[in-house]
Order: sequence, then structure tokens, then C-alpha cells
Amino acid sequence: MAKQPKNAIEPTRAVDYPEWYQQVVKAAELAEASPVRGCMVIKPWGYAIWENIQAVLDRMFKDTGHVNAYFPLFIPKSYLEKEAQHVEGFAKECAVVTHHRLEAGPDGTLVPAGELAEPLIVRPTSETIIGEVYAKWVQSYRDLPILINQWANVVRWEMRTRLFLRTAEFLWQEGHTCHATREEAEQETLQMLDVYADFAENYMAMPVIKGEKTADERFPGAVNTYAIEAMMQDRKALQAGTSHFLGQNFSRAANISFQDKDGAQQLAWTTSWGVSTRLIGALIMTHSDDDGLVLPPKLAPRHVVLIPIWRKDEEEAQVVSYCQDLAKELRQVEFSGGKVRVEVDTRDLRGGDKVWQHVKRGVPIRLEIGPRDIASDSVFMARRDKSPKDKQGVPRAEFVAKVASILQEIQDALYQRALAYREEHSHDFDDLESMLAFFTPQNADKPEIHGGFARAYATEGPEVQAILKQHKLTARCIPLGADEPPGTCVFTGKPAARRVIFAKAY
Amino acid sequence: MAKQPKNAIEPTRAVDYPEWYQQVVKAAELAEASPVRGCMVIKPWGYAIWENIQAVLDRMFKDTGHVNAYFPLFIPKSYLEKEAQHVEGFAKECAVVTHHRLEAGPDGTLVPAGELAEPLIVRPTSETIIGEVYAKWVQSYRDLPILINQWANVVRWEMRTRLFLRTAEFLWQEGHTCHATREEAEQETLQMLDVYADFAENYMAMPVIKGEKTADERFPGAVNTYAIEAMMQDRKALQAGTSHFLGQNFSRAANISFQDKDGAQQLAWTTSWGVSTRLIGALIMTHSDDDGLVLPPKLAPRHVVLIPIWRKDEEEAQVVSYCQDLAKELRQVEFSGGKVRVEVDTRDLRGGDKVWQHVKRGVPIRLEIGPRDIASDSVFMARRDKSPKDKQGVPRAEFVAKVASILQEIQDALYQRALAYREEHSHDFDDLESMLAFFTPQNADKPEIHGGFARAYATEGPEVQAILKQHKLTARCIPLGADEPPGTCVFTGKPAARRVIFAKAY
Repeated sequence: MAKQPKNAIEPTRAVDYPEWYQQVVKAAELAEASPVRGCMVIKPWGYAIWENIQAVLDRMFKDTGHVNAYFPLFIPKSYLEKEAQHVEGFAKECAVVTHHRLEAGPDGTLVPAGELAEPLIVRPTSETIIGEVYAKWVQSYRDLPILINQWANVVRWEMRTRLFLRTAEFLWQEGHTCHATREEAEQETLQMLDVYADFAENYMAMPVIKGEKTADERFPGAVNTYAIEAMMQDRKALQAGTSHFLGQNFSRAANISFQDKDGAQQLAWTTSWGVSTRLIGALIMTHSDDDGLVLPPKLAPRHVVLIPIWRKDEEEAQVVSYCQDLAKELRQVEFSGGKVRVEVDTRDLRGGDKVWQHVKRGVPIRLEIGPRDIASDSVFMARRDKSPKDKQGVPRAEFVAKVASILQEIQDALYQRALAYREEHSHDFDDLESMLAFFTPQNADKPEIHGGFARAYATEGPEVQAILKQHKLTARCIPLGADEPPGTCVFTGKPAARRVIFAKAY
Repeated sequence: MAKQPKNAIEPTRAVDYPEWYQQVVKAAELAEASPVRGCMVIKPWGYAIWENIQAVLDRMFKDTGHVNAYFPLFIPKSYLEKEAQHVEGFAKECAVVTHHRLEAGPDGTLVPAGELAEPLIVRPTSETIIGEVYAKWVQSYRDLPILINQWANVVRWEMRTRLFLRTAEFLWQEGHTCHATREEAEQETLQMLDVYADFAENYMAMPVIKGEKTADERFPGAVNTYAIEAMMQDRKALQAGTSHFLGQNFSRAANISFQDKDGAQQLAWTTSWGVSTRLIGALIMTHSDDDGLVLPPKLAPRHVVLIPIWRKDEEEAQVVSYCQDLAKELRQVEFSGGKVRVEVDTRDLRGGDKVWQHVKRGVPIRLEIGPRDIASDSVFMARRDKSPKDKQGVPRAEFVAKVASILQEIQDALYQRALAYREEHSHDFDDLESMLAFFTPQNADKPEIHGGFARAYATEGPEVQAILKQHKLTARCIPLGADEPPGTCVFTGKPAARRVIFAKAY
């Protein structure tokens, strides 16, 4: 067996993909499990990525006419109960507030006291509480549309949690819009799906498939759910964002009604759409490698890190000052609607330790700068999308002139690599047997990495669900705009209107 | 009696100050009570102000070396119990999560199920949970300092709530830092107090007094609490931000200890500091008038609103297009680290209704533009800090050239007006009788507006507390840097080291 190059992350993706994921999260200092069951601590480096995600999405939402607002954390139990499918979907895993103080119990310890007349649910999503508020705001067609987004925390009491991918509490944004017509609400739903796809592809460098969810995978209470689906490096699908056309289900439950232009009373049409800190999990699993996190430059908290290297104490001042000067110059360069974000790492640590820390944290460009580089007025550059050993000397002026285009090159390279990987592992199937073979591990060395996206004609219903469940597969989505002739369902042999994408999924 | 000018807000401040406040919040569409007891809905205009507050503070925090992170919403009951004063301070009013699902009860309705082994408290503040996490992060002096801020929602089960000023759930930021030495932690505490004062004075245009809290007013568990105190227009004090030196109290409770440079084990020194959506209440009560909200330009969601006015249908296109052009030009102008924020109000509404809506919402500059103004290439300008009737024609080019300086002029004028008001109603007292007279309503026409800030030598203790309580007064703070000789306590006649500011308070 050939000698393996040493990797910063153990185990590698091939050996144990789920554990590799946990180790990348740890090595990049993104998040950790908290002492509170199921809740995570998002550490500064992870939170800085979230701040960048927020900044870009928030601008996109505002550019499409939305404004932000804030609604209560708590939902009275009776509100949740108003929409039958909705409560069915969320009642099984929700945090319930039943008391409003603590007081000394018989044994001296504090016990819950002040029982509430009606229990409050910590919001798992806010359709019901926002619906109650909109019902008060909407009287006439002139009050519509309402185009509001909320940045918030939500809680779903998950039993098996995984940092970023599935936690009891997570951060997200939830858009809630309200319209006078079905058409307008449907357009809004699809518009926000497009915004999410644009964000995923052009900022996360993550190719996605836009599609409609099958009935079984719909948001509880929605008429239609649309999603963007991405392929992770273990070839599983990850739903990265959803946009729901809620029809009149929630406006009926909360009585959001208005007088139309003709004086008739109508129920409003609503939508909701959201992405969460789960996107950070998607980011990790799309690009990272066996040396740790790889970040698309547009979302990286730092674009360039400068690592001053010196041997003799008398060299330190010169090297550090050269780096500070260069950093100042680089911070003037425009990239992706802002300036290049630069760090000079002057910590009292070995150069090699610093390099590996920045590799593991996914900084797109590292510059190592020592007295010899200064003498030749150049920098020693390494790109995170290439091997850690692949370093090259670049004249300083050339680097400054090119840094924005190098960052864009890295951004594009990550997207192309992810797209090629997805295409390589996406196949059409016309019979169940070959489709199931596709999902059977072929390589004992890579137990977690197999399968991919299988496109096949399919119907919906209990029979199909049973087969999917048996093989741990899920219908990911019906891709939009496929425009294919009808075919035959691979599961039932019945006529099927369209192809569906199947995959194992997060 | 002279004829009163008609006001947009009823009642006026003089007639019923608390009700005036509620009506301004309503008329400016800032927030409303939600269907969930004690929780508010922050409406888009109110939330946009909060976003501006966040943007400025977040930059200030980062400029002073802090990073953001996120910690769990829930705090296990046992953590809260670790610091005796802390739990004493918060146990009486906290939301307690006791169950993690709902299931059908005997009568078919859903009832809480899945009782938790240990109740969770919805964070009223995060010292205890963050302390537990820091205890894991801190091993050596090399891990210090930790300089972290969190933007989050918190819950304190207030029985008597008031929009922005006191609500069960509110939004805030809480900084939590951890240091190797007492000196460094004390410096951090005072540095953040300075940041808050800078923000209050230079962005909110709200003069504040920086001071130390007396023992009775300290944060539960703190060694020292510092605050910025502002005077509202009813002359009551409002605590607008606090910075706490926590000593080793929380590091002892959570065992945040580290090995110092000499190899000895030490307890860390911590601080915490926060401001909340309460600042919006402070903003309202500092500047607003009987026509509604008045906003300092630096925090206004819109700086300039253009109201196109036309009579004949054929004029509409010309007027609107002139306004759009001017808006485009204005949006290029720099103001307060960004660009001038401009809205063209083209809604199908009467011009007068639009004007009053923008008056009530506090937009700093209104431009009314009709065919005659276009003919003379000028705009008809009104400033929100002046009377609604005070409008003046200004040549368009002159307005564009001056808009940033006019905004700064408004910003400065608001600050100066608030400062003059506070100075007018701040007095030193050497005897209790005259001090109590100061706090006695003198004018039956303005039942809610009286008193102010009384500075008097004072000691602390139950005797002083009893007198204060009897007269509904509170010790606001001991102003920093007063540097006065000792004097005699107005309450007890005992020697007192320093003057304290007393006031009625929010």
C-alpha cells in the first residue's frame, strides 16, 4: 500500500465520513456541543460565516422588496392546534413552557412555580403566531402584500443531533408573506426559491437543484413545498432551503381576510421560506477536504492571512512591519461588494502551527513572508483549494493586483469541482433493480460514500413510500423545468408524469 | 386661552405622558402588543431602527477587538442556581421549560408530555451558561482574554409590560469577556461603558451620565455595575446600558480557571455588558414631540422622503420621474459612514396624508415636490426637528450639496436640545426637604412631568432605601470623575464620600 500523505483531519472522508465531519467542525473551531442537550455553541469562526451568510441574504431579501420585523418567541398551544397538519408535524418535538418562575421547594431546591393557564411552545417555526398578527393588520387589499422576513432562533426537540445539521435550537431566517391573489403568492414562492438558488450557487459555490417536494415531503400545512437540493461529498442529498406556497391554509386557520377591490371578503394567500445555520453544514460537506474546512471566498471571514516568518529576533520587526503594510494595501482592494479581508497572524506561535491552523479553518489564501521574500519584494502564496504543499512565489505588486481575481478563481474552482462531482454521481434509471444497485455500497474502503442522485419516473403513494423506506431512500424533489414526456414508474409500473430525484439524505 | 395648534398625537406629552408614549409607538408603527402575554411584535419601522442600532454597535464592538458567537437559549436550572445572588435576582420571573412534546390528553386536546429530568430556563441573561462554556475553553493564560459578544433574545417574565421599555421577551446584545487579571477586566468594563456613552451621545443624540451603580442597584452577582443614565422628557431617568465587573463570582461558580505564566492556578476575571431594544424606548422619549416620533438622522431608516404632488393626471409622470432622478442623486451622497437613505413615496394616497405619516414616523427631512417646484428646479423642504409648518423652498442643486450637512445639523440640534433639557432639570441638593420638594408635582396641567435629576451627598443602606422607596425615588448612579470633597448624607446626616444622582425612573 502506497504511503498516505499526512492529513490534518483524522479520520479521512473515505474512512469515516460522519466522524470526519465532526472533526472538521472541531478543527476549524466552528461549533461545539453545549452542556444543554441538543443545543450547540456557535464559536466565533462559525458565527462569522453565519454573519456573512446573513449579510448577503439580507441584501437579497431587501432587493426583492422585503423588510425585517420580529415576532414573539412563544406560541400559545391553541395557535399551533389551529392547523391540523401543522400541529401534527411539530407537536412531537417541541419545548413547552409551563411555568413562569422558580421557587424554593420542600427540599430547599428551586422548583417550577406559577403555572401558566395555557402552555407556550418555543417557536419551531412562526406561521401560526405571525398569522394571528397578520389577521389584525390585513383589512383591505390596500394592506397587501405584506413582505416580511424575520431573523430568529427556533427550537425543535431533536433526539439525535449533529452540529449545524440537526440541533434542538438553530438560527434561521423565515420569510412570511401575505398576498391578495394565488398567482402573486405562487410567484413569491418561486422568486424566493430562485433567491436561495442564486445564493447557494454564487456565494456558497454549491450547485443546487431547484424542485418541488413530493406530497410526503411537504412542510406540514403547505400546499406546495419547493426546495434547493445539494449533493454532499458522501453523495447524500442535503435540503439547503425551502419555500412554501401555503395557499389559504394558514389564512383560514387565523382568519387573515380582506375586502377586495370589488368589496368582497376574501381569504389571503400566504407563503413562507427559510434557510438556517444548516447551510454551514452544507458548506462544510460540499467543499472541505482531509485537511479541514475549505471556504468559498465570498463567505470566508478572512480572505488572506499573512504569516510573518523569521528566525533571528532582529528580523521580527522588519517582517511584521512589511506584513502590516501589505495588509493595509490589500484591505483597499474590492472583492464581492466589499473589501479584501486580511489578517496578519502575529501570535507567538511556530509558523508551521499557524499555517496548519489556517489550513484547517479554510482561509482561501495564505501568504508566508520572511526576510528572503522581503528582499525580493515578493510573497510566498498558498491557495486553500490546492494542496498545502503547492506554494508559489509571487511578486508583491503582482499579488496585490491579482488578489481579487485569485479569490474569484478559487470561488469558481470550488463551484466547478462540486458541480462535476454531482454530475459524476447523478444518473437516470428506468428500472428499480439497477437503481437499488446504485445505492449499494461498492467499495468496502469507503463505507459511507456511495450512490448519488438517481432520477427516475415515479408515482407517489404508500407503495412507493414503503420501498423507499426499506432502502433508506427519500424522494428529494421533482426538478423544475424538466419538461419531459410521461413515463413508467420504476416502483409500481404505473404511468408517471415526471421524473423524481431520489437519494439518501441528511 | 390661546388656540392650540392641532397635534398629530393625542394626548400630548403634557396631558398624559405615558399614554402619549403608547400613541407615538402606535402612530410611528414601531411595535405593538402581541397576542402572547408580555411579548411584543416589533414592526418593520421599529425593527429598521434596531438594525441601524445593531450595525453601529456591532462595528464599535469589533473595533474594540470583540467577536460575535452564539450560545444556547436554554439554561439548566442547576446552572442558574450556582451563583446565589444571580438566581435570587432572576428566579422570580423566568420562563420554565418542563416538557419536550405535546400529546393527546384524555379530552383529545394536546397536553405537555415528555417531562424533562431537569427544567430549563429560557435565558434571562447568559452569564451562567457562557461561564460553563468558558470553563472548558480556558486552560492557560494563553487562552485569555476571551472577548465575545452575542446578539440574542432574552426572556424575563415581567408582570407589567410596556412596549420597548419592559417586555417579557426583548432583543439585546450581551458581551461576555474573560480576563487573566482584575485590572484588565476592570478596564474592559469601563471601556464598554465608554462605547455605550459614545453610541448614545453621537448616534442616538442622547446625552448620558456615566456612573457607578449603588450596591442596591447592582446586577445580581456583579462586584460593580456601571450604567449610562439618560433623562427622558418627563424628567424620569432611563438606564440605557450597563457594564458589569463580575470579579471572580461567576468564574468561581463555573470554575473558569487557568494556569498563569508562573504555573499557578488562578480563577479568571469576567465582565458582561448589554444594551437592548429598550434603547428604542429611550430614543422615543428623548426626542419625540406631540406630532410623533423624531429620529436622530444617524439611526433613521430613511433620511429623506420625497413626496410627489400633482393635481392633473398628466403631471404625474413628470413629477414622479423628477423625484426618482433626485432620489438617485441623493443616494450617492455620503452621510455617517454610509449613503443618504431616500424614499420616494409614490403610493396612491393624498399628499397631506403622506406628509403626516412621515411626520409621525420621524423622517428627518421631507421634500414636497410639485410642478411649480420642478419649473423653478427647487424643492420644498421641511425638517422634522422644526414645526411641520416651517417649510422652505431650496434650489435643487443647493439641497443636494447640503443634504449631509443638514442631516448633521438636525443630529446636533437634537443632542443640544436634549442636553439643555437635562441641564435645566438637574440640580444639586444639600437637604432632604428641598430635594423632596423638587420631586413633588408643581403643575397640575402636567401631572406626569416634574422633578429631574437631583444630585446629593448620600450614603447607602436600609435607612436610605426606605426613604427612597417611600418617595418612589431611586439612586441612579454615582457619576464617574466627579472628584468632589466628602460631604454630608442628605438622608442620614452621616458623612458621605460622594454625590449620587437620584431620580424617578423607568
